[in-house]
Amino acid sequence: MITEMVEKMLLGDRQALARLITLVERDSREVPDIMKSVYPHIGKAFTVGVTGPPGGGKSTLVGRLAGSARQDERDVGIIAVDPTSPFSGGAILGDRIRMQQHYLDEGVFIRSMATRGSHGGLPRTASGVVKLLDAAGKDFVLVETVGVGQTEIDIMEAADTTVVVLVPEGGDSIQTMKAGLMEIADIFVVNKADRPGADYMLAEVEGMLSQRPDSWWKVPVVATEAVNDKGIEELYRHIKAHEKALGDGGHLDRNRSRQRKLDLLRTIEYRIMSQIVSQIENDKDLARYLERVETGEIDPYSAASQILTNHNLIDAWLKQVRGS
Amino acid sequence: MITEMVEKMLLGDRQALARLITLVERDSREVPDIMKSVYPHIGKAFTVGVTGPPGGGKSTLVGRLAGSARQDERDVGIIAVDPTSPFSGGAILGDRIRMQQHYLDEGVFIRSMATRGSHGGLPRTASGVVKLLDAAGKDFVLVETVGVGQTEIDIMEAADTTVVVLVPEGGDSIQTMKAGLMEIADIFVVNKADRPGADYMLAEVEGMLSQRPDSWWKVPVVATEAVNDKGIEELYRHIKAHEKALGDGGHLDRNRSRQRKLDLLRTIEYRIMSQIVSQIENDKDLARYLERVETGEIDPYSAASQILTNHNLIDAWLKQVRGS
Repeated sequence: MITEMVEKMLLGDRQALARLITLVERDSREVPDIMKSVYPHIGKAFTVGVTGPPGGGKSTLVGRLAGSARQDERDVGIIAVDPTSPFSGGAILGDRIRMQQHYLDEGVFIRSMATRGSHGGLPRTASGVVKLLDAAGKDFVLVETVGVGQTEIDIMEAADTTVVVLVPEGGDSIQTMKAGLMEIADIFVVNKADRPGADYMLAEVEGMLSQRPDSWWKVPVVATEAVNDKGIEELYRHIKAHEKALGDGGHLDRNRSRQRKLDLLRTIEYRIMSQIVSQIENDKDLARYLERVETGEIDPYSAASQILTNHNLIDAWLKQVRGS
Repeated sequence: MITEMVEKMLLGDRQALARLITLVERDSREVPDIMKSVYPHIGKAFTVGVTGPPGGGKSTLVGRLAGSARQDERDVGIIAVDPTSPFSGGAILGDRIRMQQHYLDEGVFIRSMATRGSHGGLPRTASGVVKLLDAAGKDFVLVETVGVGQTEIDIMEAADTTVVVLVPEGGDSIQTMKAGLMEIADIFVVNKADRPGADYMLAEVEGMLSQRPDSWWKVPVVATEAVNDKGIEELYRHIKAHEKALGDGGHLDRNRSRQRKLDLLRTIEYRIMSQIVSQIENDKDLARYLERVETGEIDPYSAASQILTNHNLIDAWLKQVRGS
């Protein structure tokens, strides 16, 4: 059934794609099979992460970039993991309506995702969805996310180009907004550039960038007014330039290799941990440990040591892992 | 040596405390021993998480709250995991100077932490540092963090009271800023309440809160001007009220039990994964898998399945875990 669904998706069936994404999102037991059959078909998509503080107009910018990419005859996928994005349903009606054109375009596939998966669940899931979009022929994937947390960093790891979106603000926020975002940006955008303070902010970001040592890529700073469709072409050109520079320097291949390695380690981690947790939850002896820890009779660290040296538990768990 | 250091810390030695925190932060192999010896001495600290978008004046607010708690004759610990916090060294000189009073106060212990630990490392580490501060007699611990990512959610899990700090902003950001923060707030603060739009924002947050079903705790919304020391007393009173309500309703005990259970599961998870990763890195057979995945010869998901069903690997790894 999975094979059939993947076949359909590869032929362009949007419903099959949507269903597969749902399976990956829900972390169903079919995920390894899905990924195995999808893997031979990926590697063509270029992934652009768009991040920054809330209220920066990222969704509008993503919508505009999708437009540029469509004009450039690319198939576009959009993933919104930002809880405030109109794509993911977090924002006001006006924004949603502004995005509607893309909902009707067959060449654009939009998917929103919950920001808070179970413990550590999301990043892996988001990069799984990128792979599905890739295999489905979307060769330009935009991932919109918010902030500088670990979740976002993990998602950005999967992006080929990271665009950091700032807005001119009153005084103190300028300095602070940049702090966590400086290192991850391949391109800086100052959006809402018609607002007061935009020139100051552009100069300041450029000043900070000029202090960095030379590298194979000079991070550009682009002024945009996404709502008025200004500066988008220039931004898209910079993204294409970064794409080319990544390819020419062999960086893209290296990034992809690293990504595959991370996928392996995280998959192992995830599968082992699901097994361990279900073992602990279903084993009476181990449930007793959890109870004693909950009541405070034993501290969690001593309990962990005892559980890890308990042969029965590990053997039982081992059987499961080997069998699965 | 650990026992000695812990003894010293329990007697109030700040240097011993600082050293133990460093060990926990660096994830040294002594961590389980440290935690085992610290665990009997914890449970007295009340932990307040202060979170919200960058530029909201969280650090100034945390500094003021530390002042209130000191006047209330509590010992204060401050952990800054916000890269933009002046406590953690991210911000401008003025802010740092404003904080300096606390650096000189023996009753306040301040510790900054890196926001980006290794994969999944930080939250566990931050809650470990909270435990050290608790054992060292800090009965009021403030944790300052930024944003709504998974890292922050994990840290907030460890907080007894979560204070979400917003600022009046121009139009669109109001709606968006709240989206990810609504569910985790025990207390809302609108800081910089002298700015235009503050009344509107207060009304709007209260409007959103009024739509929620009644609960044992009615989330208050407090207007503050941290820089001018306004509204801090009221905020501190609300924190104390939440502390009391948590205690009266038995919520505090339940939270602590849940926290201990999480500590156990995460410790197991962490110890198993460190072993697995070091096994993979040191085993030649397995290094071969990593190589094949890096070059793309085999997909990560198939490789994970093969590694997990490979008896030699698991047996070798098992020996290590049991022995440790």
